[in-house]
Amino acid sequence: MRIAKQSLIGKSFPKLDAPERASGRAVYIQDMVLPRMLHGAILRTDRVHARIVAIDTSAAERLPGVQAVITANDIDNVPFGHGKDNTPLKGDKVRCIRDEITAVAAETESIAREAAALIRVEYDDLPPILSVEQALRGGAPLIHEHKQTNVAFTYEYSHGDLAAGERESDVVVQETYRLPYVTHCCLGTSGIIAAFDARGHLTLYSVTQVPALYRRDMAQICGVPPERIRVIQATIGGGFGSKLDIYPYEPIAVHLARRTNRPVKIVFNRQEEFVASPTRQPTEIRIRAGAKRDGTFTFREIDFTHDNGGYTSWGATTPFVMMQAFSSLYRVPHVSMHGKVVHTNNPYAGAMRGYGNLQATFAVESSVELLAGELGTDPLELRLRNAQEPGETTGQGIGLRACGLRECLETAAKRSGWHQKRNQTATDRPRVRRGIGMASMLHVGGGAKIYRSDGCGTILRLDDFARLTLITGSSEIGQGSETVLAQIAAEELGLRFDQIQVLNNDTDVKPWDVGVHASRTTFIAGNSVRLAAREARKKLLSAAADQLRSAPEELDLRAGKVVRDADGEVLADLGKVIRSLHFGGKNEVVVTHHYYEPPSVMQDQGYKGDVSAAYAFATQVAEVEVDLDTGVVKVLRLTAAHDIGRVINRLGAEGQVQGGVVMGLGYALSEELQVERGRIVNPSFREYKLITSPEVPEIDIAFVETIDPEGPYGAKGIAEAPAICTAPAVANAVRHATGGRFTALPLTPERVFSELKQ
Amino acid sequence: MRIAKQSLIGKSFPKLDAPERASGRAVYIQDMVLPRMLHGAILRTDRVHARIVAIDTSAAERLPGVQAVITANDIDNVPFGHGKDNTPLKGDKVRCIRDEITAVAAETESIAREAAALIRVEYDDLPPILSVEQALRGGAPLIHEHKQTNVAFTYEYSHGDLAAGERESDVVVQETYRLPYVTHCCLGTSGIIAAFDARGHLTLYSVTQVPALYRRDMAQICGVPPERIRVIQATIGGGFGSKLDIYPYEPIAVHLARRTNRPVKIVFNRQEEFVASPTRQPTEIRIRAGAKRDGTFTFREIDFTHDNGGYTSWGATTPFVMMQAFSSLYRVPHVSMHGKVVHTNNPYAGAMRGYGNLQATFAVESSVELLAGELGTDPLELRLRNAQEPGETTGQGIGLRACGLRECLETAAKRSGWHQKRNQTATDRPRVRRGIGMASMLHVGGGAKIYRSDGCGTILRLDDFARLTLITGSSEIGQGSETVLAQIAAEELGLRFDQIQVLNNDTDVKPWDVGVHASRTTFIAGNSVRLAAREARKKLLSAAADQLRSAPEELDLRAGKVVRDADGEVLADLGKVIRSLHFGGKNEVVVTHHYYEPPSVMQDQGYKGDVSAAYAFATQVAEVEVDLDTGVVKVLRLTAAHDIGRVINRLGAEGQVQGGVVMGLGYALSEELQVERGRIVNPSFREYKLITSPEVPEIDIAFVETIDPEGPYGAKGIAEAPAICTAPAVANAVRHATGGRFTALPLTPERVFSELKQ
Repeated sequence: MRIAKQSLIGKSFPKLDAPERASGRAVYIQDMVLPRMLHGAILRTDRVHARIVAIDTSAAERLPGVQAVITANDIDNVPFGHGKDNTPLKGDKVRCIRDEITAVAAETESIAREAAALIRVEYDDLPPILSVEQALRGGAPLIHEHKQTNVAFTYEYSHGDLAAGERESDVVVQETYRLPYVTHCCLGTSGIIAAFDARGHLTLYSVTQVPALYRRDMAQICGVPPERIRVIQATIGGGFGSKLDIYPYEPIAVHLARRTNRPVKIVFNRQEEFVASPTRQPTEIRIRAGAKRDGTFTFREIDFTHDNGGYTSWGATTPFVMMQAFSSLYRVPHVSMHGKVVHTNNPYAGAMRGYGNLQATFAVESSVELLAGELGTDPLELRLRNAQEPGETTGQGIGLRACGLRECLETAAKRSGWHQKRNQTATDRPRVRRGIGMASMLHVGGGAKIYRSDGCGTILRLDDFARLTLITGSSEIGQGSETVLAQIAAEELGLRFDQIQVLNNDTDVKPWDVGVHASRTTFIAGNSVRLAAREARKKLLSAAADQLRSAPEELDLRAGKVVRDADGEVLADLGKVIRSLHFGGKNEVVVTHHYYEPPSVMQDQGYKGDVSAAYAFATQVAEVEVDLDTGVVKVLRLTAAHDIGRVINRLGAEGQVQGGVVMGLGYALSEELQVERGRIVNPSFREYKLITSPEVPEIDIAFVETIDPEGPYGAKGIAEAPAICTAPAVANAVRHATGGRFTALPLTPERVFSELKQ
Repeated sequence: MRIAKQSLIGKSFPKLDAPERASGRAVYIQDMVLPRMLHGAILRTDRVHARIVAIDTSAAERLPGVQAVITANDIDNVPFGHGKDNTPLKGDKVRCIRDEITAVAAETESIAREAAALIRVEYDDLPPILSVEQALRGGAPLIHEHKQTNVAFTYEYSHGDLAAGERESDVVVQETYRLPYVTHCCLGTSGIIAAFDARGHLTLYSVTQVPALYRRDMAQICGVPPERIRVIQATIGGGFGSKLDIYPYEPIAVHLARRTNRPVKIVFNRQEEFVASPTRQPTEIRIRAGAKRDGTFTFREIDFTHDNGGYTSWGATTPFVMMQAFSSLYRVPHVSMHGKVVHTNNPYAGAMRGYGNLQATFAVESSVELLAGELGTDPLELRLRNAQEPGETTGQGIGLRACGLRECLETAAKRSGWHQKRNQTATDRPRVRRGIGMASMLHVGGGAKIYRSDGCGTILRLDDFARLTLITGSSEIGQGSETVLAQIAAEELGLRFDQIQVLNNDTDVKPWDVGVHASRTTFIAGNSVRLAAREARKKLLSAAADQLRSAPEELDLRAGKVVRDADGEVLADLGKVIRSLHFGGKNEVVVTHHYYEPPSVMQDQGYKGDVSAAYAFATQVAEVEVDLDTGVVKVLRLTAAHDIGRVINRLGAEGQVQGGVVMGLGYALSEELQVERGRIVNPSFREYKLITSPEVPEIDIAFVETIDPEGPYGAKGIAEAPAICTAPAVANAVRHATGGRFTALPLTPERVFSELKQ
């Protein structure tokens, strides 16, 4: 029998966990039951800014089945979160609508919720701060008194010389854009089970995306030494950044478990998920941009504010990513950025897919469109003129080793029929206009060194039957990393997928990894697997060569067999080779380990430095129809050209683009968490409008394979990219169709209609 | 701060899992619940030898809540077990009382059991074979027709020249001993959950003691490729060998899970545990033994039969271990052994702590006592005269590198006041006699190479907080291996116990290990951990030396700190050193792996060879009072001197001796599975008499530390040894007290009384 040499890289493979998920067998946190487990419920405030005067928990405590009721006074209420300005329970004052006042542990979830509803809280209301403008006004009440200001952070970035840039400019445009509150809408709502064992060691069944950091931080918040904490991740029903930080329900579960000496589970219902999980913050961005008559960009000047809400989570750090778009999306010699992250009594912001880049790219790509208009140039030509080439380093120090921006632009334009459609806005219906618009994006594609290690470890174990256990530090949050990593191992070791088991959900077993963020898993964990697998491959080929009296270089591993490399002739079953190694004279088994650290660096004080080992590019072209009478925007077609270095799993990569584009379309057209006087007034899928299947346009996907020199097989990250430039492409198409300015998202019928009326 | 150098080896440490077990939080198979799980029940036959004519399952199938009813016709009924003569369900005939006819899966256990009771089976009875004698009679019906005999196996062993031995003998004794049916009485009854995932991969939640072999064999029995099987061990409530083989309920659960496409759990109640878990088989041993006038042993000739019951499990192979006692317990130049393992329609036998050695040692040590009587020598002196010295190799090829038999004899005699008490059988009550008796034993203490690898793998991972995950191939079945292995890691790496997590229950994670048998875990897994830890230690000391600008040999690791070796001055926290290695320029983490293979060999065709890397010895002295009017034997004191090479965990080793002695006392005095016409008539703790706390005598434990050259820190295995020579020590004491022969166990009041009456 012969097996032909055939690479798996770039082929399409269904997600390994798809059958489990599709058949309803995957075990989500909602499905998990531990012996003796109690259920927790949290009473949240109904005020947005108030002092807590008194809490009466007596009725809750009397309810049969209630095992514990805790308030801030009952626990060591350690400040936490990125700004260390949040606490698990609130003792003195509340700062936003979701604030946690008390928590109950009871025999059932319904008893716990009933008990929480019996708790009475007396408040002294404080004047609420409901906007950034109000927060910055002189004499505004302080949300966190000890900060002595409502400005949580300011960010200043520049390269080049803004004044010089202005002097070189023949045209200058300026506009202010307003981006809305949105939220992740994970289908799996948040949840946790906290369980102490009899030794006092804590196991957290969690949906965190960053288990190693989570463990470290929960240790500090909960007062348990980190070496006594184990984190086991349940199947995660969507992350998108929402599970990157710790939120109050998590330490609350630990406090309830400690208090009751029983495992405690807290799971959000859908309304809680809307109210009490993080958001992508509303952002106001003023952008000025200049260009020479020939289209060469000269400068960008950006001023923006983030509405940070009541507390500081990762949302406050998104300017780190925003400045990459401002500084490095197209070649711009002079950039100056000023950003403020401002406290209000609105809901607070976490990480969300794209991490500020959706807002920044919307501003940049809208300003490019304005410049094209001013210059009377085709927007594609303008972009091509300013697109970087491979080998360039941007003003921020970002090294573009493999850069496919030009090819993305050209590919998207060609596949969408850009030039032809750009000249045609009329349709056969007089009150309906067509438009075509484009936008590009730059995003990290090889991790982001924001910690001093951005690495990932892998342990590989091949058993006597050539079953590979692939233990990776990385986590599966639905993005398909298990499948990509299994594919890489299969590629190196010539295994079938059914021979591979990926283990990635237990901090006691998995090596360190910084977590799922910055589109890093394929690149970082992929390299880690590849290098661990190469070591195993070497050992296997050497053992096979010994047993077959051959030379390792004359052999290959294919589909679970050892074959002659030259012609694929099957020489031995791989399992048999392993058993001979194990049970023969050598008595050896195959276990390897590799920790991969990318060659990136941390930024300096001025935010300069090559923070990622690779950068991904994309251009998306949107084609729309706009009904001038109703304001309804219909996206007809979306062309997405993505430079992801090299495709590993085509089906998975396409899925990522499809999902990202749909998320981007929601951001463009319909999604908005409506916050009125600090309260979320649309906490349900009836009122918070996601894009659903019938509204998804044809999505034409093209991958630009630039072959990154460091990435596994040349691959770069894909995860966040597809969501980033969809909204500006759509907005530019709507502008093209109608001539309107459209400075705010989402482009709901109401907003489009009223803009067109002006 | 300074930390003194202090070895943990030989100190006492409570079992790491004791708090979980003692507080009722340990998760046994009984406690486990999976989503969608069904419960299985098995209908067993009420005949001992019969053809199955018809099975009517219709009433069971109609019962609401029943999801599947299967018979042998519904499954691929693959033969299995050591003799491949058993099947999951019986289609043609039944051969013993426990035989499995049908199985039911239902929504609850009670529905499943109710349904099983509704099944009607029609039989043609066959003549039952109820004893070995009957089985061997000419023309006896065949239990397995295809074997054409009722003899399952014969064993012939010899060394030296029996005739020469006879010629050299001045005295010869002969006696026949009858050893009873007993069973393990694990407090945790047998159980399994079988669950297929949506990919068709099978997870077995099991109580097996040998997960690697179990997985291989279940694959074959159940028709699932081994690379698609994962075995997760629940907390095991006692093994003692009963979980060394696969028994029919296990493949039955898999067949029910496949049939229903849902997880299926089968758990035994106590009566089933008595009826359908394995036994230690009844054995009849005729032993002739000779000695010279000066006491030098000349020969032993042994004929024995095992009642193997209806099928062949591991019990049939216990002669391998029996012959070690026959050939090598004391120096005997000429040995000849003939053994037969014979099928009957009685319950069948598995492995049980000591693995035939209890029976063999009872015979040998009873014959030694007879020889002492014949020679008029003190039994201690006779044993000392024939005790081997270190460095000897026995006639079977057993290499006694570290041999403490002489010291065990002397220690036990001295601590028990042997010489004084030996001269005194009268008490102040005229009808009560005192006696003192002794017995020794030899048992493997460094594994047993019955497979071509007898090794064990370890993966160690130290995280950023110096938490060690110790992944071992070995399994915890209550014997305390977790604690010993953690202790070895703590010793090498200077860690506290709370920094160590032992993972040992998941075949997807743990490296290969042959399983818990042959008293091998401390020796084999211990060496594996020690060597993996030494590699980690080297890496840690090198990193610490780099960071502290010191030399590795000037540093030591103690209690989670890096100290100056010379004076114990604390120089750094170990976690900090690891973090510096991880987050400093090197970006390395600490993961090591070691697979340890002992330097033992497989036996040759004549059963000769050094099958274990070490051998353990012991001498136990029992002091008894016998009431001549009632036959009641009361054990007053038990002195146990055990050569275990070196003590690792003193508390654990003492616990093993205490548990073993109590098991041995049960074998000596009260335990017997009463089988009448093939039926077990005492399947409950009311009628099967275990030794309980009030009957446990003072147990004086002395460890003889001979420092084995290969064992970890000099240690040898302990697990089985303490149970092995208790019964002959007690019997010899009763003989001393009364002058009776006592050729059968247990020494119940009835038996003692009737013997004394003769």
